[in-house]
Amino acid sequence: MKKVLILGAGLSTNILIDYLLKNAVEYDWNITVADISEETAISKVNGHERGTAKIFDINDDTESWRTIADHDIVISMLPASMHHLVAKKCIDLRKPMLTASYASDDIKALDEQAKKAGIPIYMELGLDPGIDHMSAMNVINRIKSEGGELTSFYSFTGGLVAPEYDNNPWNYKFTWNPRNVVMAGNGVSQFILNGRYKYIPYHRLFDRVLTRKILQYGDFEVYANRDSLKYRAIYDLKDIPSMYRGTIRRPGFSKAWNVFVRLGITEDSYTIENSENMTYRQFLNSFLRYEPNVPAEIKLQEYCQNASDPVVMEKLKWLGLFDDRKVGLKNATPAQILQKILVEKWSMDPDDKDMIVMQHEFKYKFNGIEKMIVSSMAVIGEDQTKTAMAITVGLPLAIATKNLLLGEFKHVGIQLPIEKDMYEPILKELETFGITFEENEYLVG
Amino acid sequence: MKKVLILGAGLSTNILIDYLLKNAVEYDWNITVADISEETAISKVNGHERGTAKIFDINDDTESWRTIADHDIVISMLPASMHHLVAKKCIDLRKPMLTASYASDDIKALDEQAKKAGIPIYMELGLDPGIDHMSAMNVINRIKSEGGELTSFYSFTGGLVAPEYDNNPWNYKFTWNPRNVVMAGNGVSQFILNGRYKYIPYHRLFDRVLTRKILQYGDFEVYANRDSLKYRAIYDLKDIPSMYRGTIRRPGFSKAWNVFVRLGITEDSYTIENSENMTYRQFLNSFLRYEPNVPAEIKLQEYCQNASDPVVMEKLKWLGLFDDRKVGLKNATPAQILQKILVEKWSMDPDDKDMIVMQHEFKYKFNGIEKMIVSSMAVIGEDQTKTAMAITVGLPLAIATKNLLLGEFKHVGIQLPIEKDMYEPILKELETFGITFEENEYLVG
Repeated sequence: MKKVLILGAGLSTNILIDYLLKNAVEYDWNITVADISEETAISKVNGHERGTAKIFDINDDTESWRTIADHDIVISMLPASMHHLVAKKCIDLRKPMLTASYASDDIKALDEQAKKAGIPIYMELGLDPGIDHMSAMNVINRIKSEGGELTSFYSFTGGLVAPEYDNNPWNYKFTWNPRNVVMAGNGVSQFILNGRYKYIPYHRLFDRVLTRKILQYGDFEVYANRDSLKYRAIYDLKDIPSMYRGTIRRPGFSKAWNVFVRLGITEDSYTIENSENMTYRQFLNSFLRYEPNVPAEIKLQEYCQNASDPVVMEKLKWLGLFDDRKVGLKNATPAQILQKILVEKWSMDPDDKDMIVMQHEFKYKFNGIEKMIVSSMAVIGEDQTKTAMAITVGLPLAIATKNLLLGEFKHVGIQLPIEKDMYEPILKELETFGITFEENEYLVG
Repeated sequence: MKKVLILGAGLSTNILIDYLLKNAVEYDWNITVADISEETAISKVNGHERGTAKIFDINDDTESWRTIADHDIVISMLPASMHHLVAKKCIDLRKPMLTASYASDDIKALDEQAKKAGIPIYMELGLDPGIDHMSAMNVINRIKSEGGELTSFYSFTGGLVAPEYDNNPWNYKFTWNPRNVVMAGNGVSQFILNGRYKYIPYHRLFDRVLTRKILQYGDFEVYANRDSLKYRAIYDLKDIPSMYRGTIRRPGFSKAWNVFVRLGITEDSYTIENSENMTYRQFLNSFLRYEPNVPAEIKLQEYCQNASDPVVMEKLKWLGLFDDRKVGLKNATPAQILQKILVEKWSMDPDDKDMIVMQHEFKYKFNGIEKMIVSSMAVIGEDQTKTAMAITVGLPLAIATKNLLLGEFKHVGIQLPIEKDMYEPILKELETFGITFEENEYLVG
């Protein structure tokens, strides 16, 4: 019997755990769900004959050693910063490890050690990063193998509320970590278009959106991700003239969000004095000129041009930003206060469903003709536990775990799912779960 | 005989060294000028009978110990980050120390140790910080002692080119560290007006300038410094309703500088790919939309509203920003490239003189009447060695050193010149060098 250890049993692990438990008898696995909350672990295992719930704290070093040593394979669903701790133990104890998180620099630095130990550390096996890599490499390698030369790669992903439940002026709800949404784009965004490097500072990012129609789901907008340039190396497209990755929202989101950025209320580097006793309106006012006789609404419209658009103003008013409600957070940063205001309004209702949208756009030249392939995916969640996010993060990870246990994945060291022998079986099995890409090909021009 | 050690003999030490050497015979001092460049040290001592030139490297631990141990008092003119190293040795060796730099948190953490050792560590004894504290506290304590209640304190300082030599469209030249000018304001600016906290993110800072006339020198503009709030505690004005500190430029500077900020070319957190072979124009273009058929000038005017003002455009063109000249810097950050472009144009000519301008504005209530005191100073440099900057940084430090050696300053521990028994004698002696504040009092309203 193979013993599988899942570290961390947060929201995004539902589908992962389900898949592994469902297959546990057939493949003779036992699945240990280990979480800092024993209650959470127990509820996830839900009495399954092949499941074991366990209380677990990664900071308890001895217990971590013992737990990992007692299993055959480790899936880390802990916060990203903790994977490094887990990976080092997995290498020392010769246990394969898988995660859905980015391969950070300190993880990458373990590559040689992992290879020496003959241990696979598979990273970026979720949605984004994960399915984005697999589905992109699938098309990129096909184009290359047919003799095409890639000239442009655009790729976008977004987590949104499903259309039927999209009932607020922002056309947005939190379907994932709210803090990540508030902080999104912080830093510079870098990409390349026709050989020209482009740099957008954070404070202009939401000024420069693309618009797209995707499948039957209507209009979307896209803002640039932080570092698109590094994907030239990862996807083996070093000389590609255009490379752009972005995040999908519904049209109009960025124009309103830009008001927050222009004001500076997405900043997280300092705390607001006496934030606890401030009202939302006073919080807003602290970013506007001192003119006590002018309403905040009017000052805002003068200070941030976008706010003079009534459609934007409607979004801001709907959030309660001008209200006299108390902030009630001690020593809070602007971003923390904004997050609190947003969580009150953007949380999913119990019956709401989420949606994942992904689209790749490949341009390539073949025999002097330029063509474009658009490859699009959308997944709608089933309910609040089987969310589209949990499905698209959990399934590829679960499938990879199975294939690794069955001896079908041979790579050792730090590895992303960018190799054909990895992404092909995963994508194929994802199709059986309805996670499919619709491809359309066009002549360019 | 007392032995004085000056660590670091950069540009701003000319006046300091002069003063100490001139007084060395009368007070029986020997002045050691220690620099990483022996040549610089020798040239500064200039064969004076009471001077000693010495090669010195703070990173050579043994030699640093020996050198400090061999003197009675240490003036650190090293880069600010190195004061901490010096201070720790001074405390261990029981040697008083003085600097013109900010008391950083790691310096402040030495307060108890210094007090235990009975050692004075006097910080912020230059211009800003330095003369600003002394001249402000002089008026603040006078108002308080006369029974007035301070309601508002504004304070501004600027280093500029003297009016006679002010001959470029920016009305600005580098009279101090260019990098500090390029990076100025990075972070959030915090102040308080009539009890309302105000926060300006860096990318809006140059949108929100004040304008002032100062002495006979005409019009200036002011942008907010980073943290004005902390001066409420430092100046013992905890409950003052308004506190604002700022930096002085000539009118129109901020409107043009804001174009750089809006573009994101003052950022220092990432490097530009292939920066070495880029032209200035390509550098500019990398922050603008990809529209190869539209001139950069037109794209810039569309992207940054300020650039559509011909006065701003003249400033940008004068810098050569649209030229096809090569950047010639490898792996450079945007800020480094901008600095290179600016240094070519903003450097002082050999005959140019600089100017320091400072103005405080105090409002206070006394017997139900609100009054305002405006206290202003301007210093013009004598030449390129006796700059206004070197005079105003070096003299207060030199005077404090003398007074400390003469036993007139009793404070031990980390100390700023905010106590009457320190600032009064320094300000008095500064007057004999022509560094005087002109005071005007008004009724408010």
